[in-house]
Amino acid sequence: MTRAVLTLNAGSSSLKVALFPETGDDPLATGLADRIGPDGVLTLKDATGAPIASAGDLTSHAGAIAAVIAAFRARWPDLDLAAIGHRVVHGGADRMTPEMVTGPLLAELAQLSPFAPLHQPHNLAGIRAAMEAFPGVPQVACFDTAFHRSHPFVNDTFALPRAFYDEGVRRYGFHGLSYDYIAGELARSAPHLAEGRVVVAHLGNGASMCGMTHGRSVSSTMGFSALDGLPMGTRCGQLDPGVLLYLMDQRGMNAAQITDLLYRQSGLLGLSGLSNDMRTLEAAGTPEAMQAIDYFTFRCQREVGAMAAALGGIDALVFCGGIGENSRLIRARICERLGWMGIEIDHARNAQNDRIISTDLARTTVMVIPTNEELVIARAARRASGAEGAA
Amino acid sequence: MTRAVLTLNAGSSSLKVALFPETGDDPLATGLADRIGPDGVLTLKDATGAPIASAGDLTSHAGAIAAVIAAFRARWPDLDLAAIGHRVVHGGADRMTPEMVTGPLLAELAQLSPFAPLHQPHNLAGIRAAMEAFPGVPQVACFDTAFHRSHPFVNDTFALPRAFYDEGVRRYGFHGLSYDYIAGELARSAPHLAEGRVVVAHLGNGASMCGMTHGRSVSSTMGFSALDGLPMGTRCGQLDPGVLLYLMDQRGMNAAQITDLLYRQSGLLGLSGLSNDMRTLEAAGTPEAMQAIDYFTFRCQREVGAMAAALGGIDALVFCGGIGENSRLIRARICERLGWMGIEIDHARNAQNDRIISTDLARTTVMVIPTNEELVIARAARRASGAEGAA
Repeated sequence: MTRAVLTLNAGSSSLKVALFPETGDDPLATGLADRIGPDGVLTLKDATGAPIASAGDLTSHAGAIAAVIAAFRARWPDLDLAAIGHRVVHGGADRMTPEMVTGPLLAELAQLSPFAPLHQPHNLAGIRAAMEAFPGVPQVACFDTAFHRSHPFVNDTFALPRAFYDEGVRRYGFHGLSYDYIAGELARSAPHLAEGRVVVAHLGNGASMCGMTHGRSVSSTMGFSALDGLPMGTRCGQLDPGVLLYLMDQRGMNAAQITDLLYRQSGLLGLSGLSNDMRTLEAAGTPEAMQAIDYFTFRCQREVGAMAAALGGIDALVFCGGIGENSRLIRARICERLGWMGIEIDHARNAQNDRIISTDLARTTVMVIPTNEELVIARAARRASGAEGAA
Repeated sequence: MTRAVLTLNAGSSSLKVALFPETGDDPLATGLADRIGPDGVLTLKDATGAPIASAGDLTSHAGAIAAVIAAFRARWPDLDLAAIGHRVVHGGADRMTPEMVTGPLLAELAQLSPFAPLHQPHNLAGIRAAMEAFPGVPQVACFDTAFHRSHPFVNDTFALPRAFYDEGVRRYGFHGLSYDYIAGELARSAPHLAEGRVVVAHLGNGASMCGMTHGRSVSSTMGFSALDGLPMGTRCGQLDPGVLLYLMDQRGMNAAQITDLLYRQSGLLGLSGLSNDMRTLEAAGTPEAMQAIDYFTFRCQREVGAMAAALGGIDALVFCGGIGENSRLIRARICERLGWMGIEIDHARNAQNDRIISTDLARTTVMVIPTNEELVIARAARRASGAEGAA
């Protein structure tokens, strides 16, 4: 019997999946259902990278989940799912750990949809589809906000009338599953650093930074929504609230139009007029592409300074995410003006994507740690199924 | 004959005035017309602090200006105004220095009103009233944005589609007259520091920070509007743009309601539920007042880190503005977690409001320099009148 846990990460038009064995960090299979709808595409591959044949209705999340399951069952006829883990963007003000999915939990999570209207409903639709497909299998919700719930009040509030804080307008922070993974890796491989003041830069199509000490989050560049902080592929990052008032007042834009502008037309794409993809911008070399890269690296430097201030200093800077793990140029550019913080990278190590890329004598350690949100979800699912016990 | 220059700083319902002699830094008279309207109050005093009698119509800015002039003429019958200098919040993307007021300039400045709808129209009304009262006297406009026009592109733009930058959605920064004064004082009294990396914290009812080197602004915490950056008396400071989308989408608030919330009900007042005045909060000691102070000092620490990152390090931190010049508590609280940046204050010096409040051995100099926006305006007016020539 192939006993395994499944992880599901449902976006607005995508579904990322991974199948993990009962123990070990390497998945049996990974995959992505993309452009869910009339043009849906499902790609699955096994641990060797070989494609896994699949077929089915990709016009809905429920159809995509069914297609994934059918493909896995064809490949592993004796497949026995011990649990299913779900990434859920928003866990609200109190949830600090994963939770078993129940009817009441789903209802409570649905009430948080106004805080993350572009993501939460899709996450919950994914859970419901999985519950229908596997009525007897434990389902676990893993929250992107949970890791940041240790923030002190000054990093949890905005300077608005108190009633807004009480109703949930808080600095939640996101990418928590990624930061959770990095905190665990640091504790395992560099326990002294993990106790210190660590700034983690999760730089991908979404991007944020987390300031942590003793393995707990103190501060994040993301706040109430996934818009704030660093510029991203198509999202604006930090923006003067006066700009939104200008767009409303002087341009007559409504919430839907501003949402589209700030989530889908801004960031690297908006500044470059070319692409949301850092690789494309690095290769393009147009003045606008270079300015978009300049802006991205400058804002990263600025926020490393801000996160260090939140921590009272810095002992390590960790890069992760698609850009953080792969772009030696961006890492070098970010670090080149951070010498005043004791940061000095070894360019040979950086070029090789070494785990430690700072020089031996640098006061601040700079690391590259590939993140693994799926494994964090899988571990939570194993715990739920009893496979990992109290580990 | 008493030859002098007049400075005018017109707010929405206030008018700050000062009368300066042809040379020297000390005004002959200062004053404030407050609550302009049915309950208008005008207070004028001379260089000794003695009140100057005044009377007149305080229901409009024009009336207030006339009342000020009448009072000054009664006190100095031979008064001869060489020039009038005006504070203007917005000079647009290109103006880096004060300018003589002309019809075309006024028309251009009026076109900038959409960028500062709460302030620019009042500033221009003050200029027009002064032009009517003194048709032959040179009038000079001094812009709060001018000092920041040296920002590099990365500190001038947001990550929005390029068309927004081109139409003027930029990080202008404000409090420029104050930073201009501080830069001049530093150059005069500490020329080596002035060439270095200096973070200036203008902390008053409005608050911002400026990162400067070689006496020029590189970065500011304020951006497009006077809302961004540090929390203020009643303004929110940094706010996730997603919060505005939430207010529009989920709360059905319009631009006028959000403007009122973010400009007039937020900041220290919103968080404390008590007062916009730091002195009141320091004295109150309620949990909410203490949390408001905690938030203010934390955001200041965070932004000192960010400004230092923009400068590639820090050689000096300068406090100015009502809170920065007078609150030893806030200065001490801000500095207490900045030791990692070489900041260490001498508590005896801090308690005395000394000019230098860092310890002798601290790597980073911390100073308190009372700012003087009026003198910056007066000097520009003197230059316009020829009194200071090319000085």
